[in-house]
Order: sequence, then C-alpha cells, then structure tokens
Amino acid sequence: MKLLILNGPNLNLLGKREPEIYGSETFEDYFETLQKKYNNISLEYFQSNSEGKIIDKLHQIGFTYDGVVLNAGAYTHTSVAIADAISGITTPVVEVHISNVHKRESFRHHSYLSPVCKGVILGFGLKSYNLGIESFL
Amino acid sequence: MKLLILNGPNLNLLGKREPEIYGSETFEDYFETLQKKYNNISLEYFQSNSEGKIIDKLHQIGFTYDGVVLNAGAYTHTSVAIADAISGITTPVVEVHISNVHKRESFRHHSYLSPVCKGVILGFGLKSYNLGIESFL
Amino acid sequence: MKLLILNGPNLNLLGKREPEIYGSETFEDYFETLQKKYNNISLEYFQSNSEGKIIDKLHQIGFTYDGVVLNAGAYTHTSVAIADAISGITTPVVEVHISNVHKRESFRHHSYLSPVCKGVILGFGLKSYNLGIESFL
Amino acid sequence: MKLLILNGPNLNLLGKREPEIYGSETFEDYFETLQKKYNNISLEYFQSNSEGKIIDKLHQIGFTYDGVVLNAGAYTHTSVAIADAISGITTPVVEVHISNVHKRESFRHHSYLSPVCKGVILGFGLKSYNLGIESFL
Amino acid sequence: MKLLILNGPNLNLLGKREPEIYGSETFEDYFETLQKKYNNISLEYFQSNSEGKIIDKLHQIGFTYDGVVLNAGAYTHTSVAIADAISGITTPVVEVHISNVHKRESFRHHSYLSPVCKGVILGFGLKSYNLGIESFL
Amino acid sequence: MKLLILNGPNLNLLGKREPEIYGSETFEDYFETLQKKYNNISLEYFQSNSEGKIIDKLHQIGFTYDGVVLNAGAYTHTSVAIADAISGITTPVVEVHISNVHKRESFRHHSYLSPVCKGVILGFGLKSYNLGIESFL
Amino acid sequence: MKLLILNGPNLNLLGKREPEIYGSETFEDYFETLQKKYNNISLEYFQSNSEGKIIDKLHQIGFTYDGVVLNAGAYTHTSVAIADAISGITTPVVEVHISNVHKRESFRHHSYLSPVCKGVILGFGLKSYNLGIESFL
Amino acid sequence: MKLLILNGPNLNLLGKREPEIYGSETFEDYFETLQKKYNNISLEYFQSNSEGKIIDKLHQIGFTYDGVVLNAGAYTHTSVAIADAISGITTPVVEVHISNVHKRESFRHHSYLSPVCKGVILGFGLKSYNLGIESFL
Amino acid sequence: MKLLILNGPNLNLLGKREPEIYGSETFEDYFETLQKKYNNISLEYFQSNSEGKIIDKLHQIGFTYDGVVLNAGAYTHTSVAIADAISGITTPVVEVHISNVHKRESFRHHSYLSPVCKGVILGFGLKSYNLGIESFL
Amino acid sequence: MKLLILNGPNLNLLGKREPEIYGSETFEDYFETLQKKYNNISLEYFQSNSEGKIIDKLHQIGFTYDGVVLNAGAYTHTSVAIADAISGITTPVVEVHISNVHKRESFRHHSYLSPVCKGVILGFGLKSYNLGIESFL
Amino acid sequence: MKLLILNGPNLNLLGKREPEIYGSETFEDYFETLQKKYNNISLEYFQSNSEGKIIDKLHQIGFTYDGVVLNAGAYTHTSVAIADAISGITTPVVEVHISNVHKRESFRHHSYLSPVCKGVILGFGLKSYNLGIESFL
Amino acid sequence: MKLLILNGPNLNLLGKREPEIYGSETFEDYFETLQKKYNNISLEYFQSNSEGKIIDKLHQIGFTYDGVVLNAGAYTHTSVAIADAISGITTPVVEVHISNVHKRESFRHHSYLSPVCKGVILGFGLKSYNLGIESFL
Repeated sequence: MKLLILNGPNLNLLGKREPEIYGSETFEDYFETLQKKYNNISLEYFQSNSEGKIIDKLHQIGFTYDGVVLNAGAYTHTSVAIADAISGITTPVVEVHISNVHKRESFRHHSYLSPVCKGVILGFGLKSYNLGIESFL
Repeated sequence: MKLLILNGPNLNLLGKREPEIYGSETFEDYFETLQKKYNNISLEYFQSNSEGKIIDKLHQIGFTYDGVVLNAGAYTHTSVAIADAISGITTPVVEVHISNVHKRESFRHHSYLSPVCKGVILGFGLKSYNLGIESFL
Repeated sequence: MKLLILNGPNLNLLGKREPEIYGSETFEDYFETLQKKYNNISLEYFQSNSEGKIIDKLHQIGFTYDGVVLNAGAYTHTSVAIADAISGITTPVVEVHISNVHKRESFRHHSYLSPVCKGVILGFGLKSYNLGIESFL
Repeated sequence: MKLLILNGPNLNLLGKREPEIYGSETFEDYFETLQKKYNNISLEYFQSNSEGKIIDKLHQIGFTYDGVVLNAGAYTHTSVAIADAISGITTPVVEVHISNVHKRESFRHHSYLSPVCKGVILGFGLKSYNLGIESFL
Repeated sequence: MKLLILNGPNLNLLGKREPEIYGSETFEDYFETLQKKYNNISLEYFQSNSEGKIIDKLHQIGFTYDGVVLNAGAYTHTSVAIADAISGITTPVVEVHISNVHKRESFRHHSYLSPVCKGVILGFGLKSYNLGIESFL
Repeated sequence: MKLLILNGPNLNLLGKREPEIYGSETFEDYFETLQKKYNNISLEYFQSNSEGKIIDKLHQIGFTYDGVVLNAGAYTHTSVAIADAISGITTPVVEVHISNVHKRESFRHHSYLSPVCKGVILGFGLKSYNLGIESFL
Repeated sequence: MKLLILNGPNLNLLGKREPEIYGSETFEDYFETLQKKYNNISLEYFQSNSEGKIIDKLHQIGFTYDGVVLNAGAYTHTSVAIADAISGITTPVVEVHISNVHKRESFRHHSYLSPVCKGVILGFGLKSYNLGIESFL
Repeated sequence: MKLLILNGPNLNLLGKREPEIYGSETFEDYFETLQKKYNNISLEYFQSNSEGKIIDKLHQIGFTYDGVVLNAGAYTHTSVAIADAISGITTPVVEVHISNVHKRESFRHHSYLSPVCKGVILGFGLKSYNLGIESFL
Repeated sequence: MKLLILNGPNLNLLGKREPEIYGSETFEDYFETLQKKYNNISLEYFQSNSEGKIIDKLHQIGFTYDGVVLNAGAYTHTSVAIADAISGITTPVVEVHISNVHKRESFRHHSYLSPVCKGVILGFGLKSYNLGIESFL
Repeated sequence: MKLLILNGPNLNLLGKREPEIYGSETFEDYFETLQKKYNNISLEYFQSNSEGKIIDKLHQIGFTYDGVVLNAGAYTHTSVAIADAISGITTPVVEVHISNVHKRESFRHHSYLSPVCKGVILGFGLKSYNLGIESFL
Repeated sequence: MKLLILNGPNLNLLGKREPEIYGSETFEDYFETLQKKYNNISLEYFQSNSEGKIIDKLHQIGFTYDGVVLNAGAYTHTSVAIADAISGITTPVVEVHISNVHKRESFRHHSYLSPVCKGVILGFGLKSYNLGIESFL
Repeated sequence: MKLLILNGPNLNLLGKREPEIYGSETFEDYFETLQKKYNNISLEYFQSNSEGKIIDKLHQIGFTYDGVVLNAGAYTHTSVAIADAISGITTPVVEVHISNVHKRESFRHHSYLSPVCKGVILGFGLKSYNLGIESFL
C-alpha cells in the first residue's frame, strides 16, 4: 500500500505559525512518528505553497498510489483547480484539517474539495492525519 | 473509558432506507462488531427520532462519559438546541456522518453542530463511527 | 387499500385556532365525514405535536400502507428529518395544506417535504384532504 | 357549471417532449377522457404559447365561467402579468402541474401564480387536471 | 391571576452550563425567590427539552391562564411550530432571554416567536423573568 | 406634437379590476377627457396584453413621434425586451403607474424600464398620465 | 393652497455641484420662476443638510399645509426617520428627484420614502418640482 | 440614582402620530406619571429629532448617570454612530420600543443598538419605559 | 442540411439601434452574405418580437431541421418558456450573441437558454452567426 | 497650503472611549503635535457629531482649501449624504481611520466615502492622520 | 498570423480525465490535426497547471501575437489575476471551453475572464478550439 | 531597518498596462527614486506573478525584516493563502494599492489581506508605496 501525505500552503510553517491554533510540533517531526507507526505501508510526504505544484503532484501519483491524505490549507476554500485534479485522477483522496475550521472565519467553512473527496476528517490536531491514514487501512 | 454512540432520526432505518447511499447493514449488526473490536472500553448505543430525547441523553451522560460519537442525522442541519446541549456538557463530542454530505443537497452542507464539536469525520460509510472511536483513544 | 391521514403540530387546535384562516370545524368531525364517504377503504388518523413521533409513525406504517396524506403543519418548513423519513419509507406520501401557504408569510413558501412527496395539494380548506385521498384512488 | 382547462407554453408538445418527465399521452387524448368522465359539466380547452393570448383568454371567460384549471407551464415562474390577470377576474383559478416542480431546477420552485390562485395541485401526472376539476365540484 | 413560566431546551442545565454567559444559580432556586416575591399571584413552572411538549403545554394552559413568560431557548430561532402554537392560543405570551442574544452568534438574532408574542425582554440575566412577570401586572 | 399613450397587460380591465387599487373609471373614458384637455396636440392610445405587440408598437412610432407615456403594467418588472425596445428607438419615453408601486409587493419595486426612460411618474391615480403628458410640453 | 418645497442635503450646491448631472441653475433662481408661475398659491421653500431639521420642518408644517414637494437628496436612500415623519403628519408629501436615480449607483435605486409618499416624480431635471406642484392642483 | 429617558426622532409626535400603533397619550403626560411613581430617583427626559444631538446628550451624561432608557426610534435601525456613542460611554443603556417592532416592516427587525445595550424591552406600549426603569432598580 | 437562423426581440432594429454596440449593417444584408457563403446548405431566417411566436417556430421546425442558430435577444435572460421549447424539440440549438454580454449590465450575464443549448458563441459581432453555422458543419 | 482635519461622531471621546482600540491620547493633544510638525502649512481642525454640520463644513471650505483629511467615524458606513458632499466640492478629500476597520464588525468593512475620496489610509493609529497630511505634500 | 492556444490546469489530463465529459482524445493529438488544417498560420501550444505561469506566458506573447485561444480551465472561475493579465496585454484573447459549463455546477457559470475577452465559445467539444481559431481569420 | 517592497501579479507590466489607470512609469524606475530618498534604510524589491512564490518570499523574510509594503494586485481579492502567510510571519505587512480600488469593479472592493495587515493605503498612485514606507519610520 502506497499513500501520499500532501500539504498545501503555509503548512511548512507548522511549529512556527500561530501555535495556539496549530500546535508547536513541526510536520517533519510528526511525519517520522507516522512512518514508524505505519512501517508496513509506504508513506510519502510532499508540501508546496504553489497551487500548480500541488496539481502536478496529484497528476503524477494519482493513477498508481492507493490514497492521498490531503491538507490543502487555504487552497481548500479557493481552488476549483485542485478539486478538478482530484476528480481527474483515480487515486482516492481524503481531506484533513488540523484545526476545526468551523470554529474559525466563515470563509473557511466552505470547501471546494469536500464534494470530490472520499471523506473528510477535521479538528483532531495532527491526529487528523493519523485518522486519515487509518481510513485507508 | 466510557463512550456513547448516539444516533439521530431515521438511522434506525439503516439497512432499509436508501441503501444506495447508506449501505444495507443494520446499525445493530455493526454495533456488535464495534463492541467486539473495542472490547477494552465501555461502548454504549442510543438512537432516537426525537430532538428532545437526544438532548435529554446528552445531559444525562454529558458530565461523566469520556466521549460521544454523534450522528445527528437531519438534526445536524436544523438543531440549534442540540448544539447548545453539546456546549452545555463537558464530555467531548465527535460529529460523524456515514455519507459524504457535501456530495448531497446544499442544505446538508451546513452543520450547526460542527462549531461546538471536537472534530468531524464524514464520508467513510459505517467506518466513520470506527474512526470516531479511534479519535478518543 | 390502507391510507393514513397524518397531521402535525397545532392541527389538534383546528376549530379553535385562527378560524379566519382554517375554518371552525374540528378535524375529528371532518374525519368522520371522510370515513363515511370512503367507506370502501381503510382510513386511519394520527396527530402529534412532536416531530419525533411523526417520524416514528411514518416508519411504523411506511412499508405496509398504500399511502399517507400528510399535513405536517409548521414542520413542513423546518424539518429535514421528516423529509428523510419520507425518503426512507416505501409508502407514497402526498403533502396537503388547508390554507394557501403562498398567501402567507414568506417562510411558509418553502417546503422541505415537497421534493420527496409524490404530489402537493394546498389551499382548498379541509377539501385538500379529500383531494389527497382521491389522488390515491 | 362551466370550466376551462387552460394550458401554457410547450404543453402542445405533450407526448412528444421529454416523455420521461411528462408521459407519452397527448393532452387532446386526455381531454376527451376528461370530457367523458365529467359529462354533466361544460368543459372547455385552450392552449397557447403566448403570454398575451393566455391573458386575453382569462379576460374573456373570467367573469362568466365557474372555474379555470390552469397549467401555465414556464410562465408560472416568470409572469407577473398572468398573475395580475388572475387577480383581475372573478372566476376562481386552480394552478396545476403535471410534474412535481419541486423535484426539478430551483427556478421552478417559485410561482408568481400561487398567491393569487384558489389552490395548487402538482405532481400527479395528468391526474393533476382531474383533481383540479374535482376541486370545483 | 395565573401565570406560567415556560422554559425550553437546555435551561434545565442552568447553573451548570456556560456559567460565564448564564450565571451559576439554578432556575429552581430562582423560581422560589419569584414565588415568594409574587405571592399574591399563582405562578407555575414547566421545562422541557422537547419542542412537541412545549407545544402541548401551551395548548393545555393557553385558553385559561392570564399569561406565559416564555424562554424557548434555542427553539426561539428554529421553531415555526411553537410560534403557531402561540398564535393559536388566547393567553398572551411574553418572550424573555437571559443573555443579550444580539451580542452572540448571528443565528440567535432572529426569533420566529417575537412577531406573535406580546412583547420581548432580553439581556437582564434572570431578572428578565422578573420583568416578564411585571409586564402582566 | 405627437404623443402616444401606451398601456400594457390588464390595463384594459381598468374599471373592472381591483377597483380599490385602480379606481372604477375605464381608460377609454379617461382618454377622451385627456384628448379634450390637450386638444392642441395629437394624442394617440394603444393597449396590448402581449409583450411582443408592445415592442412592435414602440418600433413603429419610435422614430417619428415626440413622446410616449408608457404604463407597461406587470411587464415593467419582468421585460428586458421592452427596455431594449425603448433604448433602440429615438422617441423619449416616460414611465407612469397609476398606483404607488412601492406600497405593494416587493417584486413591483423594481423596474427594468426606469433606467432607459426619460423620467418616472407614479402614484397619482389616472392623473399620472396627465402629468406624463405635461412633462413633454 | 399652501405648499412647501423641501430640499435635503447638498441641494444648496445646485448650480455648483456636478452640473453635468444636475444642471447649472441655482435653486433660488428656479424657485422665483416657480413663484411667478404659481402666483395664486402660497409657495414656500426650505433647505437643510441636517436630517433632524428636515424632520423638525415636516412636523412644523405637516398638520396645516396642503402639500410638500420633497427632494430629500441622499437621505432618500438612508433615512427611516424622515419616512416616519412623513407617516406621522397629515399633509401629503410628493417625492421628487432632479436626475433619474435609476440611471445611477444601485444604492440610489431604493427609497425609504416612496412607500409613505403620495406619489413619486423623477428624472425631469428641475421640471420635476414643477410637476410635483401640478400634482396638487 | 440618576436616570435619563432619551427619545429619538418623531417621538415628540406621540399622541398625534399613527395612534393605532403608538396610542394617543403624549409622552410628556406619561413622563409626569413616571416621575410620580419613581419619586425616590432622579428621572430626566430629553428628546431630539437629530442624530447628532442624541450623541451629544449621551456623551454629556454618559459618565455620571446610572442609566439611560433609550428609545432611538428610527435611528435604531440606521445609526452606527449612536451605537458607537453607547459603546463609548460608561453609563449602561437599555433599549426600549413602544410597539413590537417585529410585527412591522422587516427593516425594523434589525437594531444597531441592541448589541451594545445592556438589554432590550419592546412591545409593551408606554409600559416599556416603565419596565426599562425597573430594570435599573 | 437545413439550418434556421432565429432572431428574437429588437434584432429587426439592427443597423438602427445603438450602432456603437451592434454595428450599422442590417441583418437582412448580412443574411444574404451568409446565404452566398454557405450556398450548399439550406439556410432560413425568422425574426419575431413575440416570445410565443419564437416558441411556435421552434416547435414547427424542431423535429426536422438539422440545427438552429438562435439569438433570443433579451428573452435570453428572462424566458424559461423558450428554454423549455428548446428542451422539447430534437433539433440542436446553438445560442449566439452579437455583443459580449458579459461586458454589459449584470442582468445580461445570466442565460436561461445556455444549459439547454448545444453550445454558446458570443462577442464576435455579426460573425457570431457565421461561427454558429460553422459549428454545425 | 491649507488643510482641514475633519472628524466625525464620537471622535471627541478619543482618549476616553474604548482606549484598547483607539489609544488614550486626546485628539486635541495630537493636533498640537501635528501643527508643530507641519508648521509651514495652515492646518485647521473641526469635529462634529452631526452629519448635517459635517456637510455644512465641507461646503464651506470645499472650494478654497487644498485638502481635507476626513475621519467620518461611523458615518463612513451609513452616510450617502457626506459622500455626495465630497463629490460636490472641488477640494480633494483623503479618508482616514485610526483602527484597521477590516478587523472589526462586518458593517465597518464598507465605506460610502471611499469611492469619492482621493485615497484611503487606515489602521496606523493616530499616525493615519499624519500620513493623510503627507499625501497632500 | 501568429496564434497561441493556451490551456490551463488539468487539461494535460485530457483523454484520461472524466472522459464522459471531455472525450478521450489527448490534446496533443488534436493539436496536430489543427496545425495541419491551419497550415498557413503559425499555431503554438502551451499548457500549465500554474496560474503564475499562465500569466507569464500571456505577458511574453501578449504584445506581438495576433490572438490567443484560451481555455483557462478552473482558473476561469477564480482568477482575477489572469483577467488582469488579459486586460494588460494588447493581443486579443478568445475564451473557449470544451464542455457546456452552464450544464455543470453553478460555480462554473461565472467567468472572471469573459468581460475582458473578445468573445466566448463553449460547449462544442474540442471543436471549440477550432471555432476559436476561425474567429481570428 | 530592513523593508521589502513586494509586488504581485501584472505589476511587472507597470508602464505598459492600462496607463490611464496606473500611469506610465515602470516600477523599476520608481524603485530607484525610493532607494535614493530612503538611503538610510535597506530597501529591497521582489515581484512575482505566482501566488506560491509570493508566499515563499513572505516566509523567507518574514521573521527577520522590519516590514513589508505589499501590493498583491489581483491576489488581494482571491488569496486566502497569502493572508495566512501574513498571519504566519512576525514581520508586519502594510497593504498598498496604486489605484483607488473602490472606484473600480465590485469584486475589487473586498480584500482577504486587509484584516491581517497592520494598515492599508490606497489610491495615491505610486505615492502609495512612499506612504507605506513612511508608515514604518
């Protein structure tokens, strides 16, 4: 089984940015923990601040991998193009968010991605990624 | 650890109602599977078609249990009263849905409950309950 | 042929409440007239002010009866749960209203039930129920 | 008793147009059936694709006939002028639709005519006309 | 003079629930104080989490009592059925709220009940009930 | 000077239709009074219930007459086509209404014609036509 | 007969302000012309930039004068208080505008005053006042 | 204890204006009754039709008085500036209305003042002021 | 191959009406050019200002012709009835506009016809018709 | 060079009102600092809580001064009349705000004044006035 | 003559992605066909999933080429930046879409690009590009 | 002191693009002038048409520089991701615009960036950058 964790804009700041919302662990640290826990599957990680590169990545792995755990960050709320990329590939995608977006600004309550994803998991801190992986097992 | 699975209106029809959306297993069957799998925790189940009884139940267990996995069904979209009940208790509540509500009618895209729940899990079929339990472990 | 007339909140006040809108006959009186007129079919009557009990009733008869003539009163405009109950059963449901709801407050112009009912009949006073029964014959 | 069945735009295509929604019987065939069934009343039929001619017809018969069964087709959703014509005459008008318009595009959910009609009947196929006639008896 | 204080969902949690908004006194304690203060009138108290039971209660006392002081809690914002019950009875109803609902979430700014109540009193803590009683004297 | 008074749908019912709003004089009677009063100008009158014929008339006289006093009735609120006809001709058009449309249903508050007319006069009963003529003198 | 012409904010700039919209004549010049033309009636003029003073003036003359020709300028679109003043007096008020407000910004298309005025006249330049006076004769 | 009753635009017409909504007693008469009833507190009265003067008054007394009973009339629905004045002072303000504004035009259902006032009392006729004073005792 | 060019309201004014938007050539001149260019197909032309006659024409040719190039003018934005006529026939229809409607008033940005047409071509001046014909070849 | 600093409602409370938003310096103190800093230009100051007086002031200086630095406070969001006054004068006006209005209530995000001002400066505390003056140098 | 065909996000998946909407031919195959057909003009092709690179390309060729046939894919609905790029260059741009976007989700009905493009062609499958090229000849 | 001037999409066209709105000086020329004027601080310049690269740049300098003067161009109105980047860094950001965006299309009136920036300066042509730098001194 081959899964990709795909992070969108500003998630490279994790641990630095607004720690009262997102916690202070960096995603790289957390990813190592995940790899150890799920050592019987192939787990990959990619992050980009560019909408275009996120689409490129989805195209590249989207016909061979078994699943994507996607936190598209702010692009969740604005990107029809990423939604179309998800529709265009055959690998199922699960949408995750670290924070409970429904507790935040109203423009974060709408996701262009949810209707084209297999499922949505949000609000469990970094554990959202964990549950996202579990959903494929 | 003491968890309650709380189901709202029409979920007693599971297995009968619109099986192309919800599958054909009854919830009672599935609940047994869950109890076997999580046999080291106390897992309880309650269902009602009445908004008032769901509130009563939340009040009754909401200061002593460790968590609620709540599928409020259609009340998700209309009940401020259940949202207030969740705010009023101290037990954390996780919102789950069997189907991906964002693929359905637009009035199902809004949840009064999400902003007062700990997290949200949706779209994984009955496995959504499973992931809901996992989120408390 | 087995039909249920199902009345929602406040319809027990018929004859008492706002007679300039709803007329002064009680529904029980009218029901007797209907039973006499349609004495070759089985005609039953149930009323409740509780959303949950209306759903319970629909579940209970919704796989064996031949039709429901439903006046859900104010729940028409607010209840996704009753709409889901109608979708979940196999008995066809016809939505009726005594008054012409389109002549009244704008929040009465929208019905969550219409899209899941077989048809809609409104504005004919108590005769709306009569026509509702006719629609099944 | 003198009744007019008045059909609006495209209803002359009945039997030809989108038969999966409207069925394959022509209205002329159906009208004959109605005349036979209600042979003790005077039943007339008029159809036009022109908003102006529908208004002209309403004016012409609207002070002497006992009722109109009106299916204004698409003009239901756009014509304030037909609504004004209905208000301007003394003959009561019942609005009917073959399909359940609430199951279709959202612009078909609003009717300019409903608030000025005596009642509304929709969703029963051609039987909607039948029930419309019944409502006057 | 016979008055009913009628409380809706979650108000049984008073003293427990979000005390920073609602204070820490239970309603039962407060009701005793009110009875002592207004010992020359008959003052009754009823609470339910169920929309249907609130309607039942209004019907039961709504043609004989002199007034109702109603805090419908969250149903204020969602229940057309309770509004219809108030319209349907002859006893005048005064709407009260403990908190100033206009300082809270926007969905709490609209009340279905206000247009059918005699008056509205909100934001004075438990004293809102006191003023509600005064309004009938 | 050559002026046309152009009346839209249902204005042929004047004197018959809703006299509490429009008065009981027929327009033909009133037109004679106008012709007598303004006997030094050429005053013509045309009425149609058909949007298309109103457009035809505007085209026919719209490059030679000195002005049009237009009461488009209900088409005021729905007809982009008449607005385009007014834009397309060189004769100036003044929009008039008998009733004060701003006291009536909200869909009568918007006019597609106002932005392309020279001016608007409304609410003065039949005298609105009188003032419309005056505006050209 | 006693009429007041009442002008609101910025109309004192007439002749100075945006002459391409309002023309270059001052209102005082124009008022003299009006007084000469209508020398058999008592015609008065008042202008203020203050909402409160416009209300004061309406109260002062609003139970004895025969009419007001009111151009409330920008307050047309924002002042519920002036609308209430018009409702509160017995003298009828006619709303006038120099420009065709429907050709300008969309916030100028709505008037709080129109529903409480006797009639509306707009778009005829300064002649709008003239027609306003005529409407009272 | 020092309280100010502060009335906004058109309330000086009380007894004259639309008596079917506001009753026929003048506010000055009523104020005398209030002073007699509450003769142990200092009760003052101020009315203005000018938004600016209402703000001036609030500034002048807003750091020394114990409370304001404010009926801002139409400015309730349009004045952010009065709301800011209330926020800017330390004296608590209670919003009152004579009529039940929720039974009237929809633009009267929103108040800019409610979120910055201590509480709201409306619909009790002149007794609303009485209850407003009580709320400070 | 048999094609119909079908023009709606005001397009008979082409060459006369607002030439800065639509150019100064009449459609008849242009149609001759088209017939010469496409002399191997049967090309017909029909124009009407009446919504009803446009529908009649679509019905008449809509089961035998190979295509319609339709410029419905202002009816594009208001006519559900023409949209239903297009759905009801089997001949494919291509929607064309001379001007780029998206550069004009916002009410011209929505078309009821687009969802039921095969395709849309707009903004190329009279060449839009040319491209419309090409689309069928 | 002659500049006016023009302050609207409640800005006289500066230093008293909500100091956590606006700071605790009075505007008079700050104005002295500004006059010292810009001692080579003529700098004037005017404040009023009255919309009408702000308009009067703009008219009075609006054809001779070189610039206005305007903080219209709450009138920014509600006053079409001040916007019209700015359009009506020839002196350029720069809109300033002390706080970042986009961080506050949503009704503060819209300004009627911005489209008619030369530029906008907001969020820099009292320094916003400083930058406003700089913009004219 | 020098034309660029410019494709936006996900169009590189053509032939792979949702073939029931877009067909199964790859764009590269189709482009060869186009080059052969239009061998007397210079035809170039560029695709990118990145909004920024599409803008870069428009800048690079936008002052020397004779035309661009642009299918911006999902950026059509979300990119003000590409619209600004089109406005900023002198080469005319024609917007094309393979599918009839008006038959799909409502967020695909709005295009930021249409108002700044020369024309729009949509719904003809790959032939839309063909017609786009024709529009420049 | 270290400041970055950060320009978004299409600002590289300055001097070429729509000079009637933006002027004809290139930004590079203007930047040299700024560097000379503010020769005692370190002033840097970066431009990109890519949303992702703007975010990358903000991350790179956003924990060490003293300020950013940001003109995000069209991304101002569409990019939640850049807003999140600004929230995520510690360097304060000032939003500037060359034109007065409130005089342009309505979609340019909303900025996702304003609520997370220190302040906003717009409408002063290139001088907006100058004032942006001044705001940090």
